[in-house]
Amino acid sequence: MKLEGVFAPLTTPFAADGSVALEDLRVNVERYNGTGLAGYVVLGSTGEEVLLTREECSRVLEAARKVAGREKTLIAGASAESTAETIARARLAAEMGYSVALVKPPHYYKPHLSGQVLLDHFRRVADASRIPILLYSIPQFTGIFLEASDVAELAKHTNIIGIKESSGEVQRISAILALAPEGFQALAGSANTFHASLMIGACGGILALACVLPELCVELYARARRGEVESAQQLQQRLLPASRLIATQGGPAGVKCAMDLRGYRGGAPRLPLAPVSAAQREEIKECLQNLQASAPDLA
Amino acid sequence: MKLEGVFAPLTTPFAADGSVALEDLRVNVERYNGTGLAGYVVLGSTGEEVLLTREECSRVLEAARKVAGREKTLIAGASAESTAETIARARLAAEMGYSVALVKPPHYYKPHLSGQVLLDHFRRVADASRIPILLYSIPQFTGIFLEASDVAELAKHTNIIGIKESSGEVQRISAILALAPEGFQALAGSANTFHASLMIGACGGILALACVLPELCVELYARARRGEVESAQQLQQRLLPASRLIATQGGPAGVKCAMDLRGYRGGAPRLPLAPVSAAQREEIKECLQNLQASAPDLA
Amino acid sequence: MKLEGVFAPLTTPFAADGSVALEDLRVNVERYNGTGLAGYVVLGSTGEEVLLTREECSRVLEAARKVAGREKTLIAGASAESTAETIARARLAAEMGYSVALVKPPHYYKPHLSGQVLLDHFRRVADASRIPILLYSIPQFTGIFLEASDVAELAKHTNIIGIKESSGEVQRISAILALAPEGFQALAGSANTFHASLMIGACGGILALACVLPELCVELYARARRGEVESAQQLQQRLLPASRLIATQGGPAGVKCAMDLRGYRGGAPRLPLAPVSAAQREEIKECLQNLQASAPDLA
Amino acid sequence: MKLEGVFAPLTTPFAADGSVALEDLRVNVERYNGTGLAGYVVLGSTGEEVLLTREECSRVLEAARKVAGREKTLIAGASAESTAETIARARLAAEMGYSVALVKPPHYYKPHLSGQVLLDHFRRVADASRIPILLYSIPQFTGIFLEASDVAELAKHTNIIGIKESSGEVQRISAILALAPEGFQALAGSANTFHASLMIGACGGILALACVLPELCVELYARARRGEVESAQQLQQRLLPASRLIATQGGPAGVKCAMDLRGYRGGAPRLPLAPVSAAQREEIKECLQNLQASAPDLA
Repeated sequence: MKLEGVFAPLTTPFAADGSVALEDLRVNVERYNGTGLAGYVVLGSTGEEVLLTREECSRVLEAARKVAGREKTLIAGASAESTAETIARARLAAEMGYSVALVKPPHYYKPHLSGQVLLDHFRRVADASRIPILLYSIPQFTGIFLEASDVAELAKHTNIIGIKESSGEVQRISAILALAPEGFQALAGSANTFHASLMIGACGGILALACVLPELCVELYARARRGEVESAQQLQQRLLPASRLIATQGGPAGVKCAMDLRGYRGGAPRLPLAPVSAAQREEIKECLQNLQASAPDLA
Repeated sequence: MKLEGVFAPLTTPFAADGSVALEDLRVNVERYNGTGLAGYVVLGSTGEEVLLTREECSRVLEAARKVAGREKTLIAGASAESTAETIARARLAAEMGYSVALVKPPHYYKPHLSGQVLLDHFRRVADASRIPILLYSIPQFTGIFLEASDVAELAKHTNIIGIKESSGEVQRISAILALAPEGFQALAGSANTFHASLMIGACGGILALACVLPELCVELYARARRGEVESAQQLQQRLLPASRLIATQGGPAGVKCAMDLRGYRGGAPRLPLAPVSAAQREEIKECLQNLQASAPDLA
Repeated sequence: MKLEGVFAPLTTPFAADGSVALEDLRVNVERYNGTGLAGYVVLGSTGEEVLLTREECSRVLEAARKVAGREKTLIAGASAESTAETIARARLAAEMGYSVALVKPPHYYKPHLSGQVLLDHFRRVADASRIPILLYSIPQFTGIFLEASDVAELAKHTNIIGIKESSGEVQRISAILALAPEGFQALAGSANTFHASLMIGACGGILALACVLPELCVELYARARRGEVESAQQLQQRLLPASRLIATQGGPAGVKCAMDLRGYRGGAPRLPLAPVSAAQREEIKECLQNLQASAPDLA
Repeated sequence: MKLEGVFAPLTTPFAADGSVALEDLRVNVERYNGTGLAGYVVLGSTGEEVLLTREECSRVLEAARKVAGREKTLIAGASAESTAETIARARLAAEMGYSVALVKPPHYYKPHLSGQVLLDHFRRVADASRIPILLYSIPQFTGIFLEASDVAELAKHTNIIGIKESSGEVQRISAILALAPEGFQALAGSANTFHASLMIGACGGILALACVLPELCVELYARARRGEVESAQQLQQRLLPASRLIATQGGPAGVKCAMDLRGYRGGAPRLPLAPVSAAQREEIKECLQNLQASAPDLA
């Protein structure tokens, strides 16, 4: 199972009454199908998975799978606080036709969830899952760092094939790849550090910014793959302010606002998340316009 | 709605097959009914609420309510990442006959959950809940501190009656009481700081240690209320090592192990939480024995 | 060596040319001599000790000692990164006629300065000092917490008599007093938490706010000592905004500005520290006026 | 002033009586002169500068300059808490014949040392210094991160030529280079992340490991410069455990121990820093032996 290139972590659109708007999701995915994206992550952090009911999760997984292009690799978020529920979600993903389950650490009982306890959790899930597991480290949300040595331990499991590293600390990817068995795959979790991550061994990225600007993210990947270090770095530097403003500062609300501005179906996030303010919206608008002005052939 | 005295945050017992053991829960509550505990919190952090399914939550709420002594105040944990689900859980608590809903902040999207967004969440929940809301600050698990100024803002809402302050930073209680309207109630969230909290204005405590040693926790409260500062402080100092070892370090697993040692029905926590090691169990045993030796009339 | 009551950590005034203004220091101390302050700390954090040359330190110590009232206890800051220089400074303090040396942990090599290494440092200093040592925990500046168990170990040394606890986490004082030998003295390091600290066993405080409002700090101490819990708590709540604004947020610059406003000789801090802005000055002015309006008999 | 290649931050050897052992320093530098090191940093963190008296600093600067090879670039640590003393130290470095002054942020009054205050400090030093300034970000010791936007501001000053980035967070180098004017130089501050840093634009490194294994560090740099990404990455991975064990975990004591094992004059650090334990020494020994076995031609 090779995970190379750029993956978009799909947003979950909501209707005015707060219900999941599957038709909007389909429209977005159909447009993404025409880009060079390698695949989709459904029910990731950008997808507001933790704000959905179990039943909504099933429907979103099903809807995205049905409309996704055949050549797109499908990854499903499959995490929960309890080990049993995590296994159930990985199984649901497999039944729904997904190729990979993206699993973040349980994190509520932080002081009691480290070392052997975490390793055991991931191994139990990997043992029980019919599809391969992609680890997911996103300490800014979970408060838990998956340490390189622990990741390397988990990488020995034949059903754990890689990690989405969203800590933003690029050197963690170096450290993981140095310790893990050959073939273990690291994906950048943010467009802020995409080029740097590729330079030190990442095989791709799951980038919230790819929901907004899939073509530019794919172009950055292509340049890096062709060894065009300088032009890749230039594009990275042009994308950096957008990535920070839209994804890092904005979160799901920022990504959805920028999608609206780019003609996708973004909409509002679910409560308690708030839509971006009018001022933030203007800032995002200006940022996207600057980007287009500086790369008219690309954006 | 006065919340005075010591509340035990009930553990959720599990059977060997991993299912919820309601009978064990009943046995524990019946024994607690004979103590001076002011009431119970059902589905708090010690109750492993985040590891239960929605349906299990309902059954635990029902079972505890049925067996609880009439004079015991019943508080139900009612939290979720989404505002809508939080409201649903507060309503369930009301339907089940609970007097107060204990609500912690949504916390997954940490960088996007502060200030006005958090205030709006709690106000929406308080508006929609038929029973009063007790705020719940437990930053070691959520990564979110409820700041005194925000708590004071929320305290103006007539349906928000107090806070369980579990940060362990006693001065936060001072700061909250200094800013909040008269009558807002602060409860200590840990036996580590119970006496200090009472001395600066807390009206009681929700103490994991009270699942293990309810009599001693109640005695500490009584001494403080009678103004016996020195003897209260002595008892606090005797309880401190037990509270740290069993509750802070041990978490739900530690509390359950200590309950087993005291003749309650503790058992194992649910995965991914692991039971305490044999060495930890010995340490807890010794700690309880030391406590009994030093306070034969009490323990 | 009993350390009871309120101590002011003296600021170091500077002349327009940046040199130490000893005459201004004398004027301040003479006015403090007329208050109920128990004593002075010279060359503490509020005294900008780390910004002074060794020779300036000597002159400030000498000047303050000469003018201090006879009944005032004199404590000298005596800290450095190297053990040898720390000892030298403790000896200088003794030669200069100070009764106690206030010693904070060396902190530059944080990851290498903990546990046994720190204990050894403090013991070597205590062995070599002719005057007793007061430990000084101020993690917001040093990045190092003196843990209760380590403090309790150090408290066994006959020449280590107490601790100034400036972490702001009141429960640390409880924990230290619970573990340390009888007679070990804990002083609050901030007026933010002065009353709470006294309630749980502190014997006094070294309060930057006492440079600005010595009478009110002394009054708070007196009320607490007389067991007037409610009126002490009221005064604490009135002092809290001033303490936060002037000392916590303002630092040495804030304290000096507030001293100017109260007729003391404050002046500017030494570079790189910047004076408070005009807006901050107005805020401090207003805060002091509010305080006076609410306590005309006191301020 | 180009800073390219590998610089060793020299250790300061001490005699048995605790005094500075200048003869040992000379012996080390003479041996380093025969390697491909680009230059030396004298009085950096590895040089235990904060544990030396002012007079010792002068003597160490003089001794190192006298014996350093003509083609080696000389950088002097020049930092203090006060702006005036920092300027004095930068001037001393210039007088002593050093080409660059390495200046870390003042950090004691952390909450009051950020933004404009820090910028002003560095600008004042840069204005007053006759030699160019190299910024020095080492948050694990100072508790202060130099943010990319602030560094980019400072980079506009003609006398501020670059930064030693020791935070270990590689993406900070990307962010700085993206924002700073063309020609601003970033040096890696740790061998842990040397290759990754070079890949994203660093021009060299100041590496504590280069005090122990200068040839291997220089070889890694050469491979990266020749575009041999794979073989450079392999060497990086071989050096990673040594760098972590010796420099990150060991600090000055670890570096000195490893130098002893490699035939340099390491010795003990100055108190309060403790020498490595016997067990750590064995671990370092084994690590160096493994490294030699895996790269017999290199080490």
